[in-house]
Formats: sequence, C-alpha cells, structure tokens
Amino acid sequence: MNTGELVELGQQLRVDSVRAAAAAGSGHPTSSMSAADLMAVLFARHLRYDFERPDHPANDRFVLSKGHASPLMYATYKAAGVIGDEELLTFRENGSRLEGHPTPRKLPWVETATGSLGQGLPVGVGLALAGKRLDRTGHRVWVLCGDSELAEGSVWEAAEQAAYENLDNLTAIVDVNRLGQRGPTRHGHDLDAYARRFQAFGWHTVEVDGHDVDAVDRAYGEALSTDGQPTAILARTLKGKGVESVQDREGLHGKPLPEAEDAIAELGGPRDLRITVQAPPAGGEAPARRITTPELPRWERGEDMATRDAFGEALAALGSARDDVVALDGEVGDSTRLEYFAKEHPERYVECYIAEQQMVADAVGVAARGWLPFASTFAAFLTRAHDFVRMAAISGSGLNLVGSHAGVAIGQDGPSQMGLEDLAMMRAVHGSTVLYPCDANQTARLVAAMAGLEGIRYLRTSRGKSAVIYGPDEEFPVGGSKVLRSSGQDRLTLVAAGVTVPEALAAADALAEEGIAVRVVDLYSVKPVDVETLRTAAEETGCLVTVEDHHPEGGLGDAVAEAFGDGRPVPRLVRLAVRNMPGSAAPEEQLHAAGIDAASIAAAGRLLVGEAIVS
Amino acid sequence: MNTGELVELGQQLRVDSVRAAAAAGSGHPTSSMSAADLMAVLFARHLRYDFERPDHPANDRFVLSKGHASPLMYATYKAAGVIGDEELLTFRENGSRLEGHPTPRKLPWVETATGSLGQGLPVGVGLALAGKRLDRTGHRVWVLCGDSELAEGSVWEAAEQAAYENLDNLTAIVDVNRLGQRGPTRHGHDLDAYARRFQAFGWHTVEVDGHDVDAVDRAYGEALSTDGQPTAILARTLKGKGVESVQDREGLHGKPLPEAEDAIAELGGPRDLRITVQAPPAGGEAPARRITTPELPRWERGEDMATRDAFGEALAALGSARDDVVALDGEVGDSTRLEYFAKEHPERYVECYIAEQQMVADAVGVAARGWLPFASTFAAFLTRAHDFVRMAAISGSGLNLVGSHAGVAIGQDGPSQMGLEDLAMMRAVHGSTVLYPCDANQTARLVAAMAGLEGIRYLRTSRGKSAVIYGPDEEFPVGGSKVLRSSGQDRLTLVAAGVTVPEALAAADALAEEGIAVRVVDLYSVKPVDVETLRTAAEETGCLVTVEDHHPEGGLGDAVAEAFGDGRPVPRLVRLAVRNMPGSAAPEEQLHAAGIDAASIAAAGRLLVGEAIVS
Repeated sequence: MNTGELVELGQQLRVDSVRAAAAAGSGHPTSSMSAADLMAVLFARHLRYDFERPDHPANDRFVLSKGHASPLMYATYKAAGVIGDEELLTFRENGSRLEGHPTPRKLPWVETATGSLGQGLPVGVGLALAGKRLDRTGHRVWVLCGDSELAEGSVWEAAEQAAYENLDNLTAIVDVNRLGQRGPTRHGHDLDAYARRFQAFGWHTVEVDGHDVDAVDRAYGEALSTDGQPTAILARTLKGKGVESVQDREGLHGKPLPEAEDAIAELGGPRDLRITVQAPPAGGEAPARRITTPELPRWERGEDMATRDAFGEALAALGSARDDVVALDGEVGDSTRLEYFAKEHPERYVECYIAEQQMVADAVGVAARGWLPFASTFAAFLTRAHDFVRMAAISGSGLNLVGSHAGVAIGQDGPSQMGLEDLAMMRAVHGSTVLYPCDANQTARLVAAMAGLEGIRYLRTSRGKSAVIYGPDEEFPVGGSKVLRSSGQDRLTLVAAGVTVPEALAAADALAEEGIAVRVVDLYSVKPVDVETLRTAAEETGCLVTVEDHHPEGGLGDAVAEAFGDGRPVPRLVRLAVRNMPGSAAPEEQLHAAGIDAASIAAAGRLLVGEAIVS
Repeated sequence: MNTGELVELGQQLRVDSVRAAAAAGSGHPTSSMSAADLMAVLFARHLRYDFERPDHPANDRFVLSKGHASPLMYATYKAAGVIGDEELLTFRENGSRLEGHPTPRKLPWVETATGSLGQGLPVGVGLALAGKRLDRTGHRVWVLCGDSELAEGSVWEAAEQAAYENLDNLTAIVDVNRLGQRGPTRHGHDLDAYARRFQAFGWHTVEVDGHDVDAVDRAYGEALSTDGQPTAILARTLKGKGVESVQDREGLHGKPLPEAEDAIAELGGPRDLRITVQAPPAGGEAPARRITTPELPRWERGEDMATRDAFGEALAALGSARDDVVALDGEVGDSTRLEYFAKEHPERYVECYIAEQQMVADAVGVAARGWLPFASTFAAFLTRAHDFVRMAAISGSGLNLVGSHAGVAIGQDGPSQMGLEDLAMMRAVHGSTVLYPCDANQTARLVAAMAGLEGIRYLRTSRGKSAVIYGPDEEFPVGGSKVLRSSGQDRLTLVAAGVTVPEALAAADALAEEGIAVRVVDLYSVKPVDVETLRTAAEETGCLVTVEDHHPEGGLGDAVAEAFGDGRPVPRLVRLAVRNMPGSAAPEEQLHAAGIDAASIAAAGRLLVGEAIVS
C-alpha cells in the first residue's frame, strides 16, 4: 500500500470502529480512532502473519494491550478479510466472537485476553522471550499500548525484563492520545516524558506523529533495525481523530459517537480496502518436542522431606522428560526449590526477579507459544499477580503456578510470608485446579499430573519437612483423595490436606485410644474435590471436621461444603482454620495457636461426637 | 554524634543484628549489616521523632521497606533506648513484639507492616501525600528500600506518583548491596542504572558510598534541601558488611551468621551507644477534625438508581459531614462515581491514575496518619492490589475499598471487567467486612456504617440501575440481613445479595403463584454474616438456595455455609453462582446464561422443594 492508501485504510478502520460501536450501542470508538493509523501501517506494511494458520511458529504476534480498542482490532480483521462486515456488526452481541474486549477463547488470532490495562505489554514480553530464548523462530512481537496504562507498575516490570533480556524482537507502540477514561493523563502529549522512562529502562525509543503514516512506517522500520534492545514508539495521536465533535475532547471515553452517521460521513464514508498481510518467512518451524514419561524422584515411607523439595526434584525430572517445560522464578528459587530445575535445565529457566506480575505474564506468553510453564514464588506473593491469573483464565491459558511457604506452618518469619488466602484466590479462578500435597511422593505425582491438565493449575507446597506417608508407587488422581483411616465404626471424618494431614492422623490415633473411631481423608485435590468420598464419609460417619492451614474463607472447608451444595442432606460440619492473626513463633506453636494441631482437632472431634456445638 | 561515633554506632547496630538473629536461630543479619550505617546516620542526625508519642503529627515517618532487615530496626530501637537488650534477644520468639518482619500491631513506632517487598515505598508515598496535601504538618518520610525490590512494578507506581505530586518531603534510601535472595540483582552495584530510572520518573538522585557516614550525612542533607521533588539516595553497600566470611557473598541471605561469636568479635564486640533522636518541631499539631452525622441522600421506593450512583452520592455526603474522609481514585471515578466526591471535596480527592497497588498503598499511608480513606475502582481491578490488601490487614490498617461493576450484570463489556472473585478475595482477608447492597438507600446507609468500622471494609457496587426497594429510613446493621418475604408456610429460603435480590423476589413471587411459599433473605452483609437469621430460616424452611453474581467459590454460598460450620444440623443447600465463562451480552442475558436469574432460581427452588438433587 502506498501513502494515500494507508491514509484511506486508517479512515476505513475509523469508520468501521464507529459502525461497530454504533451497532452495539456501546464500546470505545474514540480510543480506536486514535490508533487507527498505527494499526493500518502495521498490518499493511510490517506484520508477518498467516491468518489461515494462527499457530504458525514464525508468525509475528500482535497484542492489543489497550483491549477496549477492540473495534479497531475487529475493523482490522475485516480489512484483512478474515471476518465479514456482517460479523463486524455483531460486536458485543450475545454469542458473537467479537467481545467487548478480545479473547483468544473466541478468536484464534488473539494472543491473550486484554481489558485489564497494563497486561498486554507484560504478556508481549513473555511472547518475545519465547521467541528469543525458546522458539528461536525469528518472530516479532508488536504490542499496541495506551498511554494511560503506562501508570501501571506491571508495565515497568515488563520494560525492565525486556531490556535486560535484550528483546529486540519486541516493539511497544504507545498510542499517546493524552486522554484517559476520566480525564487527561499525567503527561498529556509530553512524549519525552514517556521516552525518558523507557530509555532509562534500557529501551530504544522513537517519537512520532501517530497520524503521519509515512513517519509511522519509518518508526516501525527503525524498530525492526534496532539490535539488542526493545523499541518503544511513542506516537502522538488524538482521541476520536477525524471527527471534529469528539476529537481530543474529554468525557467521551467508552461511548459510541453521538451522531454516528454524520461522523461516518465526516470520515469520508465506508470503504472496502483490503490488506494483504505479509506471510511469515518460510521455514521457521519450531523443533518437534520430546515428551516422555518422567522418571519421578522416589522416597521411602518415613523419610523426612519437605513438599517444596519434592516439587523441585519432580519439576527437574519433568523437565528432563519433556523439553517443553519452562520454569519461571520470582527470585526465590532457593526457597521454592525451582533452583533444582535451573541447575539441570538452565536454557529453560527464566529468572523474573521480584516481579510476580511479570512472572505470571511470562507464563501466559510462553504458554501461548506452546510451552508448559511452571511459575513459582511464595504462595503469599502470588496474590501480587492475582489480576494476571484472573486474566489468564479468561484467555484460557494453561499455566502451572506453585506457591511455597503456605500457611502458619512456616513459623518464625511471620504473617507477611504466610500464604493464608491462596486457596481462596486460586479456587475462585474459573476452571482452575488446586492441589495441596502432604508428602513428597504425592507431590511428585501431582507435579507430573499437572502437566497434563488444562487451565490454571495451582500447587501449594510447604516449607518444613514432614514424614513421607505414601509409597513411591501410589497414585493420586486429580479430583481424588486418600482415605487414610477407616473402619465400619467411624463416628466422625477428619478432612485434611498438606500440613494438617499428619495432625489429623495424630488426632485420629488419640481419639481411637479413647474408643472413638475416626476416618481420615487426605483431600489433596482441593479443586476439583472428591465428592464421592466425601459423600460416602458423610453417610457413614454423619459428621465431618475440616482442618486447614488457611483462613476459614474460601479454602478446604468451603471446598468440602461445596460437595453438598446440590440439595442432598448435609452432614454436620465443623471447620478448623486459621482465625487468628499469627505472629512469629515456631511451626508447632503456630499450629497450636491457630487451633489446627492434633490436640485441637481431637478436641473438636470429641465435642462433635458428643453432639455439641463446636465454637 | 561525630563521625567516629556514627561509625561506632553502625558497628553496634551490626553487632546487635547478628546477636538478635543468633538468638532466634533465623532472620536476616547480612541484609541488616549492609544498611547499618544508613540507619545510624538517619536516626542520629536527621530523623525527628518522639518515641514517647508515636502519633505526634509532626513526627517524621520511617518505613523499613526491606522488612526482612528487622534486626537492624530493632537494634536501632535499642540504641534509641526504647527497647532493652533483653527484649532484643526475644527476636522471633512466640509472643515477642519483635516479629520476623515488623508490624504496627506489635510496635507503635512501625508505620506499616512490611515483608512483602515493594510495598514500603508505595506506603511511604501515601504517608508523604498525607503530609503534603492533608496534614500539612511538615513531617518528612524516610523509606529504606532494598535494591532487589526495585524490580517490583509497585515501586514505579510509587515513583511516578511521588514526583507528580511534588513530594519533596519524601526520601527513598536504597541499600544497593548488589545481592538479592537467590543471587545478584540485575544491576549489581550499578548505581547509575537506578539513578537513571528515578530521574526519568522525576526524582532528584544522590549516589553515595553507603558505608561513608559523612557522605551519607551529606546525602540526607541534600535530600532535605531539595525542593519540589522527592529524592532517591542510591547507596553502594556490601551485604554482610564488616564480617569478612559473609561480606558481599552469595548464598547467605536470610541466615544467621555461621560463627556469630567470631563475627561479633570481628565487628569489635558489643557496644552501648545511645542515640538521642531529635524531637519533632514544636507546634505542627494537626487541626481538630469535624466529625458529624452525615445527611445521607434519600430515594423513594420504586425509583431507579444504581448502587454505584448511591455510593457516589453517599460518599460525597459523608465527606461533607466528616473532614477526615479522603477519596482515592484509580482513574475511573466517572464509572465508580467517586467523581461526586471529587467535585465537592477536591482538596481531599487523590487521583492515583491506573495504579491500583499505589491507590491502596496511599489508603494505607493516609489511614496511618489518621485519615479515613475510601479507595475505589472496578471490583475486578482490585485483584491487582490483592497483596497490598493482605499486608494492610497485617498492619491492622483501617481502609474502605469499594469495587464497582461487580459480576456478569455489567453486560456487554465482558469478563475482563467483571468482578467475579472479589467476594472470595475480600472475605479471606483477616478481620475484613464485606458488604453488598442491592438498592440505593441500603448503599447509602452502608457507606455511612463503613466509616465506623475497623480493619478492611469492602463495599461491592453494581453498574446497572435497579428499583429502590427499601425506604430511606430503613436501617442496615453490619452483620444483619433483611427478610423480604416470610410466612409460616415457607418451604424454602432464597438467600441473595445485590443484583440477585430482585431476581430472588421475582422467583419467590413465581413460586408463590404455584403454591410454594418461599422466604427471601437479603444478605447484604456477606461478612460478618447474619447467622441467627440463616439458622432460623434453616430450622423453619429446611432448605436454602443461595444465589450470587460471583464464581461459586468463596462468595455468598460459602458465607452461608459457614453459618452452619459449628457442628449443628445443616439444612439442605443449593448454591447458584456464575459457573460459566461469560462473554459479551446484555445484563439480563448474562444473568440467564449464568443461571442466576429469576427463572433459574425458581427452577432450582422447585427441584429442592421436591426433594430432588439440583445439578
């Protein structure tokens, strides 16, 4: 396309954005109009992409970080000939592929769900990292950002990693239209303000008039010819560009244009230009991956071993058996034991430093390129990345997250380091799997199982050593549980997981000595939960005590209650959980103070069997 | 103190840090030793603080952002004479005030709980903002940061706001000791790398040898004399400084020194220097605050009004009645309706832009200075600040958080904008209150009630309009509920909150026409939950259906189940919640697709009354 055609294409994308939002009665046309020329030049001149084969390894990757500008994206797809005009006008309708914010669950050309600002560039870094360090297929990553979203710290985690990893295959295109949702941004049209920041973080920068298609074209060329560092193109644009009544005006974010027909006329009316997007370079196929069955580490019963250690060893073994496994660290690999993987497979280990949002974004990015990421930090610090996990679920992304140092059982370090809400956070993620092993062999098996699942998989590990209670050949299906104590006389069932399993066993033994037979269930699969075993236990024993090293909300107790949430008769239930605010103390002191140690469990059991209220 | 004494004081702080960690058998002495001279000079020469009166408005504020260096902090307290040597050696013991990471719940001189890295500077910005824009008492804020934690994006959200707000009362002291937990940082001892970043964000910077006490003293002086911008002091230090066997070495993070006695000898043995910390300047009292009863907005039954609108109006009214109310916005005040407050009380409104972590950190900071913060964004985006909320609870901080656009009911914008896990996240916060109103009058009353509570208070609001169902004089105690339909023949109880209340009422009416009497409970107080009403309903109707615009985990259903978690007989329960991944669709289509509209509720009710399993 020549200059004149590019200008026309930009206008076409504006018109189609206005039309889509008008048809929907909602949406963000003004945010689309500012970036229309940037998109026109990118798709017509620089992007290399095979729409017929979205998973082509050599395809460039485009991320719309400002996801609310979805009309622009869909207008571009129409210009590329992959959606029709009729579909364009289904924007935001029930059942349409063209959602308010784009998601890969609906459209194969979308790399990652956006709509929570400040996430596109971080995921773009993950995609570029995959290209640079893992795939090596030479693909480039283009991310269209808003200016408002540069206020998100996650953007600077991304900027830092991108420069440190020399991601010259990454270009951030910043649509500096000066206006956020509520009003002007902090820096308005001061492109230098943004350039200084990116430069300080090690990026090459280009400042450009975002409505001058030739200048934009040269800027993209400059990005392509920049070696050793990522490029940020800071494009001065006008929100609502091209329609006088809305252009560069406040108060018009996220609203269809008031007079759509007039606006379309002012933009020169509908057009039907077609973009021929360049094909990806020939070759560039990713090497076939070797995926074999891992030789998991094995421990003998009675050995002392922390589940975090078992995780580290199992992941290293998984990495040996499968060359698609990638480990992402939050600068705590010596604690989480991700370092075991790092030592054996340094080429597939990424140190993300203390930047948990970026760590999860990297996981989303490499997963989108077909890798199998395991990202790990303290369970407590995964809360830092909650919004990224939420958005990953919307993407339908397949991630393994591993949180160590769960619960009060960590001891002296105190509450800031204790994961006490991670089960609640991870259970509430759509389609997630939540696993909480109590011994080393169980951990190893669950790590291997995670590799075969879909969606967000979460494994919770513990800091302290504990006795191995399962043999190395025992199997632990996801969605299952283990009945560790059982008899025909059971009057009570204790449901535990992780560090509370040995406590529950000790409590059961104590109660047995008093003549109270007690069932013990190891509910290592917190989600999905083993409803059959729980229902059988309820029918046979009449009452259940759950005990968890977690706050009472959203964890094991709730998971058990959910098994009876379909209207069937419900057993009597008692939930023991961490209701206090812990301080520093030894692990056993912590368990006792929280009322989740063997003595507390036995006491609750006695009351419940005596048909008393436990409080 | 003269130079020689400062050097000695630094050594004393090292010795006491080593001794505290040795006594505990854990802790972070090497991270303390790098910053000992920085602390010695600050406390002996520059900090103005009355230890007898920690709430003195003119006190400077010190934040240990690298909270794991707590031994250094406690050693400094000892040198200041406010804790004794005996207490120092209780470090990390059960019941000791000297926790592994400092918290204000235990020690009155600690401004905020730290231990999750990258949070101290953001909260310091909140403290400095209070000083600059609200208190105007001239206090200064000093934050001691680690170098590793500068990888957290939250630090750059803080840097951005601090410069934009011209916080020249804020100094960040960065202990650049080159070593993180697992290994070297990205930038090692490259002070320029950090200086470039802070400068680009608008800060004044000073680079200094962090072990040269005179140079450090001059650097603090330069910070004090810098007008109009915050200062970052980048101090080159050595981890484990002063003990050859650990100094500047990897693999020694978070470990007591191997040979403590030898190390103490190498440091010159114990000393007993006393710091006389300067008193805060005379005067500088904060003005007395006017706190009266708000004249809340009132609506008539049957009016159409969104709860987000009611929140906005009620908060503006609260701000008129109390001059301690501060509103913090995430650049969505036009959507959350925080803009109503902004228009009436611009002097107490802070636009934090799209930086939710910083928004919550500001709330923590201003709350620590006695203000009553209300921070608001979309419920979905509060997940971004999850770790800050978690740490705020550890601080015992009093915050009001308001999440708008809850649930699938927002409609076309799609899942990225829908808060579907916010109830789970907020319920699992220790000591939190979670409120979810269904109409305007209820919202206004709950906003007023929040002001009188402690801890983390969360209000969930809805985007769409709904009919006002309560009169303007109705009261809504926190921990209560409203029984909206009730008779002696009720065979079922529907428990709803927010947007599902009108759906439940419609379902009840439909079932009543079929001869099935149904009770309806508006459970606006999700935590604490009204156990009495729920238990009565269970006894009288035998079965309960919960219905919520939230994922099934951690929300209303779990809150109801918890009311029966003490071993008493449990009613039959069915929980209706959002189990699908929503797309774009109209609000009523969304409710139907999720199975939480009136028709779905009525269908579940019929099955349950017929003693069928509902699935």
